[in-house]
Amino acid sequence: MNVFDLDAYLHERRRWIEATLEERLPPGSDADPGRLRAALRHATLAGGKRLRPVLCLAGAEAVGEGRPLLAACAVELVHAYSLVHDDLPAMDDADTRRGAPTVHKAFGEAAAVLAGDALLTMAFELLATEGIRQGAEGAYLQAIHELARAAGPLGMVGGQAIDLDLKDKPPATLRELEACHAGKTAALFQAAVAVGALCGGGSADQVQLLRGYGFDLGLAFQHADDLADGEHQRMAGEARARARELCRRAAATAERFGDRGRPLRAIADLVERRAGDKPSA
Amino acid sequence: MNVFDLDAYLHERRRWIEATLEERLPPGSDADPGRLRAALRHATLAGGKRLRPVLCLAGAEAVGEGRPLLAACAVELVHAYSLVHDDLPAMDDADTRRGAPTVHKAFGEAAAVLAGDALLTMAFELLATEGIRQGAEGAYLQAIHELARAAGPLGMVGGQAIDLDLKDKPPATLRELEACHAGKTAALFQAAVAVGALCGGGSADQVQLLRGYGFDLGLAFQHADDLADGEHQRMAGEARARARELCRRAAATAERFGDRGRPLRAIADLVERRAGDKPSA
Repeated sequence: MNVFDLDAYLHERRRWIEATLEERLPPGSDADPGRLRAALRHATLAGGKRLRPVLCLAGAEAVGEGRPLLAACAVELVHAYSLVHDDLPAMDDADTRRGAPTVHKAFGEAAAVLAGDALLTMAFELLATEGIRQGAEGAYLQAIHELARAAGPLGMVGGQAIDLDLKDKPPATLRELEACHAGKTAALFQAAVAVGALCGGGSADQVQLLRGYGFDLGLAFQHADDLADGEHQRMAGEARARARELCRRAAATAERFGDRGRPLRAIADLVERRAGDKPSA
Repeated sequence: MNVFDLDAYLHERRRWIEATLEERLPPGSDADPGRLRAALRHATLAGGKRLRPVLCLAGAEAVGEGRPLLAACAVELVHAYSLVHDDLPAMDDADTRRGAPTVHKAFGEAAAVLAGDALLTMAFELLATEGIRQGAEGAYLQAIHELARAAGPLGMVGGQAIDLDLKDKPPATLRELEACHAGKTAALFQAAVAVGALCGGGSADQVQLLRGYGFDLGLAFQHADDLADGEHQRMAGEARARARELCRRAAATAERFGDRGRPLRAIADLVERRAGDKPSA
């Protein structure tokens, strides 16, 4: 068997995902109240690595032949919503993202609040529409449950609340830091892979294994991100070791899916390299 | 048969709904990052007529014996989320609601953005959890679809975007005004009744009829609200006549459900009286 070409794999899936997002987000027009549609496109189509929706597709691939593109796009919409709201002046107050103005800088704060709300809502609408269309109500209802839990107070919203508190009082231990990462990042990584596995027809055991993969990978990804950005320097050595451990555990989980798990395995290796010993700055 | 006692009907259902909300929203504690839980309770439990969740229950009653309390609470959470975000400084910039400080006044703007996001997310989580628990995946997935469409760019978010535009340029015709009301108010009224009918096991025809009831009632309700608040005075006569027409059509739809439709019929009559000739101010 050939060596797995992760770059080609990621590139192809990004293309599918972006084509589907493009199709689902109609262009703004003169009749675009509050420039809402334009803001939605800006929030969603102006770049991004698309790692979470790729993980969704890879999760489906690990358990079968399915390619739940709309479910993957739903995951990306939840990610996009969280960025728009996190960037707001009352939150992280960011002026730019991926080299472009943030949504509230480009379209105003009201449009940014509404655009985030719309993206979050559209994610659930997309999953419901697709579940009904496919006659796969059980799997898609479970996927909605998975994604909503990840996005809610026990997941992303909770993590962001902790993060805002941490601004006044930086985390004292890796454990405290990870409580924040768990909600802010790992919850959606976990849901992304699990949603893929659910919509791809995976068994309860498979979904549960892949949840673990996603959570480990998400924590490691956030550690790698912090290390690259030079954040929480005092814990850098500890965080690097922890990220490596998490990625190796994720890789081992992926291997349990044999050849079908190769993309997930390769992504775990990629994150391990990113978190590796050489500071990337 | 006795005269239908709407006050008693509303009172009892409000009690059920508030008890269920209370149970689903655990109290804040010292470990309440960003005071998020406290903000969620403030947004949800500090009063409100609970008309939308009552309509959800009445929709279920029109088609059978079901009492989908959690679905009704999901509808109320979507309503509560929309109030929290609409009140934000960047939107309507409201300091008080129902005599209490708005969420951002009491808990800060970041907590208000997050609380709104959490309420919207929890609505979908609640419907998914309940659909799985009941083994009624098809009905609850359709309910999620219904609620997400009502909340999204073609519904509440779109209506709010139009509303923000209208602040600079008031509507010239009743038709323009109703385009805003349709998204801001009627979409959720429609979804509330339809979600009840779906979760109560209604047929596609019944759900479709009840959608019409909810939409008509929602438009009439918003006209009644505007009339009571003295808004759009120039169109007052026209709006009053239109509200009466909408309520009578809604009442006629309710009557098609016989005795089971009595609560819906009585609610339509109530809104008609509110929109009636005597200004309530």
